[in-house]
Amino acid sequence: MACWTAWPVSCGRWNTALDEFALIARYFRWPPQREQTRLAGGDDAALLAPPPGQVLAISTDTLLAGRHYDASIRPEDLGWKALAVNLSDLLAMAAEPLAFTLALSLPEADEAWLQGFAAGLRAHAQAASVDLIGGDTTRGPQAITITVFGAVPAAQALRRDGARPGQGVYVSGPLGDAALALRLGAQAPAALRRKLDRPEPPLRAWRGLRGHAAAGIDLSDGLSADLGHVLRASGVGATLEWAALPRSAAFAAAGATAALQRESLLHGGDDYELLVAADAEPPAPRPGQGWMRIGRIEAEPGLRLREQDGTVADLTPAAWTHF
Amino acid sequence: MACWTAWPVSCGRWNTALDEFALIARYFRWPPQREQTRLAGGDDAALLAPPPGQVLAISTDTLLAGRHYDASIRPEDLGWKALAVNLSDLLAMAAEPLAFTLALSLPEADEAWLQGFAAGLRAHAQAASVDLIGGDTTRGPQAITITVFGAVPAAQALRRDGARPGQGVYVSGPLGDAALALRLGAQAPAALRRKLDRPEPPLRAWRGLRGHAAAGIDLSDGLSADLGHVLRASGVGATLEWAALPRSAAFAAAGATAALQRESLLHGGDDYELLVAADAEPPAPRPGQGWMRIGRIEAEPGLRLREQDGTVADLTPAAWTHF
Repeated sequence: MACWTAWPVSCGRWNTALDEFALIARYFRWPPQREQTRLAGGDDAALLAPPPGQVLAISTDTLLAGRHYDASIRPEDLGWKALAVNLSDLLAMAAEPLAFTLALSLPEADEAWLQGFAAGLRAHAQAASVDLIGGDTTRGPQAITITVFGAVPAAQALRRDGARPGQGVYVSGPLGDAALALRLGAQAPAALRRKLDRPEPPLRAWRGLRGHAAAGIDLSDGLSADLGHVLRASGVGATLEWAALPRSAAFAAAGATAALQRESLLHGGDDYELLVAADAEPPAPRPGQGWMRIGRIEAEPGLRLREQDGTVADLTPAAWTHF
Repeated sequence: MACWTAWPVSCGRWNTALDEFALIARYFRWPPQREQTRLAGGDDAALLAPPPGQVLAISTDTLLAGRHYDASIRPEDLGWKALAVNLSDLLAMAAEPLAFTLALSLPEADEAWLQGFAAGLRAHAQAASVDLIGGDTTRGPQAITITVFGAVPAAQALRRDGARPGQGVYVSGPLGDAALALRLGAQAPAALRRKLDRPEPPLRAWRGLRGHAAAGIDLSDGLSADLGHVLRASGVGATLEWAALPRSAAFAAAGATAALQRESLLHGGDDYELLVAADAEPPAPRPGQGWMRIGRIEAEPGLRLREQDGTVADLTPAAWTHF
């Protein structure tokens, strides 16, 4: 069943029915960059060697056409995003990204689409220094399943259950841009739209989190839902500061109603920034851009929001859903 | 984007739209069996620790409804098979299976279907001693993408490029059963149909292959195509012995035409047995059932078949295709 893992030996070259998908595989044949990649493609399985003393962090996510994205996204951006939504899971574990596999289902081998998708995927793979080590192609409804592999010393893996009362709640970047872009549709300013189509998780953040953060999660379902996962796993609560929630310049300038801004900030998903709980601000997730403190972990369970005027009320998490 | 990796903390419990898929995830929450599984589910990523001195073998395969299977397969069998088609890739690398992730796309949460699928998947996972360490659920066309992880000392990984002239070509079990069952359709005897719906790759074969085989591949696309991959990767050829190709009792008794039998034996896919090249017969792949020698690696490139009457002719590989 391993077609792509066979790509360098021209999977199906002797069979015309497979030629089209052998062609597809050729778009994804890139030379490995990392010493941990011992064998990529060309066999029944890839071989990956995590650094000595570290364990492998593994996460998988599917992007399905019509569900997680629509035809308005450029193939380049989709390739970029498909890796982003997976890398953010590794970063949230304080794991260094190493490699990934790609299972690609396509209704047909559209070369223009494939070139764009592969270029966007490769650009992000190079930016993140991760190798594409194997995959599978299937003819069917357009769907992209990526499984990513990272390395982390087991004791330094950043779980969701480590938040403790008194710690600060920090995020790695502005919130709500992607959600607002989605809601504004064709009216969304380009800068916002870019956050939806081409999210940029903080690729080097894993290093600074080790030993400096107590719990972490990636912001995919939205602030309230994802922080809620951390709070429940840790058996704690939190109060967020409305005034402290970071907005991008594009977010503020988009002219959305106050209600839509509020919904996007508190509940909007697809940001792929990181949220961590820490005793003090960890080293910067991106060069020149520090963590932003947005609230405080408390012993009392539940999630609360302190408004601009100082009043505090319960905040009901509402997950961003792709269903 | 990691919903299932969140299952123990009730991914989406506060959101009705996610409840249905949180329910799905519950079918796949099994206690880990292996010491290598350091964290399964419940966080942004799973943690897997390959044994010291070994590398991780990784393979991924998608099964798509209407493409790789149809509605006539029982959910229990589909769950079993989805793991089988992936495990065989690891076994062919002489890797010990450790764990897997599951990305599941379903049009709806059909509880009867889910119970059956999960039961079949779990039965095979227990038989193979592999842990389900994470996954993702999506609402969409029915599709199953599994990524499997095994461990092997890097120097003992069995690649496709190690076959050398003079070695024997061995297979781990009878050929053509699944292909014949598919072609016979509703007329297929139950024993044949079982080979198609519930293939049983030789789960312990990895151990005997280390140090005893030179090249290996799993038989998924069919004998001629898969052996062809090995021959091209190794830069050699081979002659197969028609009389030596192993047929099961059910295959012989099915009453298929000679042409259909021949096509199934030589080119039929979906067997998930192993093929290896070795100087001498390796230790048995299954208790009480040895490897079957079906031909010989030769310096002259190309694939040939010696017929019952002793004549030898070129055999054109014809890949089993799911497209």
